[in-house]
Amino acid sequence: MRIVEIRVTPIAVPDVPLANTKGVHQPVFLRSVIEVETDCGRVGLGETYGAARTLAGLRSVAPMLEGLDPWNLNDLRQRTETALPDAGGVNAPTALADHKLVDVVYSAFEIACLDLAGQQAGRPVHKLLGGAVRDTVSFGGYLFFKFAKQDLTFGPDILGEVMTPDALVDQARWMVGEYGFRSLKLKGGVLEPDLEIETLLKLREAFPHHPLRIDPMGAWTVPTALRVIKALGGVEGGVLEYLEDPCRGMDAMAELSVQTDMPLATNLVVVEFEQVFEAVRKNAVQIVLSDPHYWRGATGSIHLGQMCRAAGLGVSMHSNSHLGISLAAMLHVAASTPNLTYDCDTHYPWSSHDIVKGGRRPFADGTWPVPTTPGLGVELDRDALADLHDLYSRTMVRDRDDTDEMLKYVPDYVRKVPRW
Amino acid sequence: MRIVEIRVTPIAVPDVPLANTKGVHQPVFLRSVIEVETDCGRVGLGETYGAARTLAGLRSVAPMLEGLDPWNLNDLRQRTETALPDAGGVNAPTALADHKLVDVVYSAFEIACLDLAGQQAGRPVHKLLGGAVRDTVSFGGYLFFKFAKQDLTFGPDILGEVMTPDALVDQARWMVGEYGFRSLKLKGGVLEPDLEIETLLKLREAFPHHPLRIDPMGAWTVPTALRVIKALGGVEGGVLEYLEDPCRGMDAMAELSVQTDMPLATNLVVVEFEQVFEAVRKNAVQIVLSDPHYWRGATGSIHLGQMCRAAGLGVSMHSNSHLGISLAAMLHVAASTPNLTYDCDTHYPWSSHDIVKGGRRPFADGTWPVPTTPGLGVELDRDALADLHDLYSRTMVRDRDDTDEMLKYVPDYVRKVPRW
Ligand SMILES: [Mg+2]
Ligand SMILES: [Mg+2]
Repeated sequence: MRIVEIRVTPIAVPDVPLANTKGVHQPVFLRSVIEVETDCGRVGLGETYGAARTLAGLRSVAPMLEGLDPWNLNDLRQRTETALPDAGGVNAPTALADHKLVDVVYSAFEIACLDLAGQQAGRPVHKLLGGAVRDTVSFGGYLFFKFAKQDLTFGPDILGEVMTPDALVDQARWMVGEYGFRSLKLKGGVLEPDLEIETLLKLREAFPHHPLRIDPMGAWTVPTALRVIKALGGVEGGVLEYLEDPCRGMDAMAELSVQTDMPLATNLVVVEFEQVFEAVRKNAVQIVLSDPHYWRGATGSIHLGQMCRAAGLGVSMHSNSHLGISLAAMLHVAASTPNLTYDCDTHYPWSSHDIVKGGRRPFADGTWPVPTTPGLGVELDRDALADLHDLYSRTMVRDRDDTDEMLKYVPDYVRKVPRW
Repeated sequence: MRIVEIRVTPIAVPDVPLANTKGVHQPVFLRSVIEVETDCGRVGLGETYGAARTLAGLRSVAPMLEGLDPWNLNDLRQRTETALPDAGGVNAPTALADHKLVDVVYSAFEIACLDLAGQQAGRPVHKLLGGAVRDTVSFGGYLFFKFAKQDLTFGPDILGEVMTPDALVDQARWMVGEYGFRSLKLKGGVLEPDLEIETLLKLREAFPHHPLRIDPMGAWTVPTALRVIKALGGVEGGVLEYLEDPCRGMDAMAELSVQTDMPLATNLVVVEFEQVFEAVRKNAVQIVLSDPHYWRGATGSIHLGQMCRAAGLGVSMHSNSHLGISLAAMLHVAASTPNLTYDCDTHYPWSSHDIVKGGRRPFADGTWPVPTTPGLGVELDRDALADLHDLYSRTMVRDRDDTDEMLKYVPDYVRKVPRW
C-alpha cells in the first residue's frame, strides 16, 4: 500500500461569536480536510487547522509523501521534517493556532495514515493505538460568553448575547438539556474575575453534581488566580474540578502552583514533550491537555498519556473548533489513553455542519461512542465538503484573528494577557 | 482474531562461565518460549527469562488471556495486572533477572501479540512500532572475562579461560574476526580496576577505531570510577564511548555525573518510566538502555526512546542471554527507534543453539538485517524447542544464581557491590 495522491481542501464553517482572552470567534472557522489516496484505492481522512500557515505547510509536505507506506510513521515524520526544515520546535513562530507547524502537519497526515492502516488491517484505529479501554468517550459542555452575532451572511447565531452570569447559566441549561453533558467548562478571562466567580457559583447552584472547570487562558495574575481559587471554595468542597491556564507562562503557573493545592491544567505552557520535563521540574502543572492535532498525532497523544502517567500528571483533552473527522480522531485517542480520566473538551455543539456521512448525531448523555468499524470509522460527505469549500472561497477569511474580530464588537478593545 | 491457547515452554540452553559482578554464568541459561494460538490458527511467538518467578508469572497470566484480541495491548496490560496484583512497580521484589514481574510478563505476551497482529496485517512488526528507520541493526561485540568451563555435561566451552587483559584482547580478535563487530563492550567489575584499565587500553591498541564501552555493574565507588575515567583519557580523545553503570544506585551515579563529562549509561538505575524523570532531575545518567523484555514490551521500548529524546538522553539497547525470538524482537524495536544511535548489546554469539527455523546465521559486519516478512519474521523449530526443553528437565536448574555458581570456581567468593 503506497500513497499516490493527496488532496488538501480548505473549508470555512459558520461559527458564532464565542469570546476568549484573544478576542472573539470570526463568522467562520477554518479547517483543512485531508484525503490520502493509495495505489489500492483506499482513502484515508484527516482534519486540521485551516489557517494560511497550516495550509501552506500541508501543501508543501503533501507532494513529498508520494510512495509512502502509510504504516511507516517514522518515514512520514522524516519526510515532514525534510519538507519543513525551519518550522518545528519550541522556538518556532507561535502566532496563530498552527504553532508547531511540523507537529501540526505531521499530525494531520498521521491520522489519515492510521485511517488507511486500520482499514487495511480491518481494525478500528484505536486498535493501532493500544486498544480502547472504554466504549464511549465522555465530553464536557464547553460554555462561552458571547456576543449576539452581527454578521449573519454565512449562518445564524445560537442563543444570542451571553454576557452575564445568569445568561451563561441559561446557556449551560440549554447545552446540558440538548446533549446531556455531565461536566461543564467555562472559557473564562472574558468578564471581570468577580463576574466569572459569580458565574461559577451560579453554575454550581444550578448543577450541584457537575464537575466545573474554568479556562481563562492566562488572563489572571498570580494574586488574582489565588483570589479566585479562594472565592470558589478552594480544593476540598470547592467548586472547581481543576483550573486551566489561569496565568500566563510556565513560571507564573509554577509560582501559583506552589501557593495552592488546586490542580492546574494546561494546553498553553506544555505543548512539547520537552516541556513535560520542565513542567515536572518546576511543578508548574498537574494536568496536561492532550490533542491529536498538535501532540505529534494520535501516537504522540498516546505517548503523552504514558509520559504523564510516569510523571504523576493527569491527562485531559483539548479542543479547537472542529468537525467529524477530528472528532473521530479524538475518540480513538481518548478511548485508548487509559489515564485520560477527565471529560474531554469539544467545540462540536457550537457548529451545525459536518463533512462526514450520516451528518451530525447528538451526544448521548455527553458521550460519544468509539467507532468500531475499520480505520477512523468516518466517510467523507463530498457534497458537504464542496459546500464548505465554496464558503471558504466566498468568505475571503484566510487566517484566524479573534482580536481583529473583537474590534467589530468592542471598537476600543486592546488585547492584554494577563488583564486582571 | 482471538486467543484460544497459550503454551509456555521453559528451556535450558548450554552456556559458558562468563563472569560479572554477581558471579558467573551457570552451565545453562534459562528462557521461556511463548506460543500464542488464535482462533484463526495463527501462532505468535515470544521469548523471555526462564527463572522460576517469571515462569510462574507467565503461567498465572496465560489462562487469563483466552479470548483476548492480540491487537488490544491495553487489554493485555489490564489482564496481566489483574492476574499479578502484587507483582509490579518500583518497589516490587527485585531479586533475580525477572525484576518487575508485571512488565516482564506483559512484555513476553506483547511480543507474541504483535507477531500475530503483524501477520494479520501482512506487515513486519516494526511497521506496528512506527516503521524501521534502518534496514540493518548494528550490534557491539560483548566481551567477558571467563573461566575455563568445569562442567561440560551440557555443552562445550568457548575459548577456555580469559582472565587477563591479553586473553581478553584475544577474545575480542576472535569475536571481531568471526562476526565483524565494529564496536566492543567489556563486562567489567570482574578484575581489579587497574587490570580492566589495562584491558581497555590494549583493546584500543588492537582496535584503534572501535568504540569501546565497559559495564562494571556498580562495582566501583565514585572515586574509583573517576580514577578509571582519568586513566582511560577522559572524554575528549579518551578510550571510552560511554561508561555503563560504574556505580551502584541513582544517587551514586548522580554524584559521579556531576564530577565528569563522561557519558554515563544505565540498565540498572533507570528501569521504570518514573525513573526517567528522577534521573533527569538528578542528572544521574546521559544514556538509558532500552530492552523489549522489561521496558513494557516493544511498544514500551519505543515509548522509552521518545521519552529519552524529549529528556535529551541517549538510547542504547540492553541484552540478556537470548535466542532468535528475542533477537527478532530486539531488531524490530531497534530498527524503529530513531534515536537509538549506539550499537546494541547482544549475548547471542555466546551460545550455539537456537529455536527458530533456519538456525543460527552469522552476524555480517556486526549487523543483522531487520526482518521484512509479516509479524516477527521467525518461525519456531519445534525439534530444537523439544531438545532444549528436555535439557531443562534434565538440568534441574530452575533459577539463575551467578553468585552460587561462582563458588564452584572461587570457593571463598563473596559478592560485594561496590567492590572497589
Ligand atoms: Mg485551554
Ligand atoms: Mg548493563
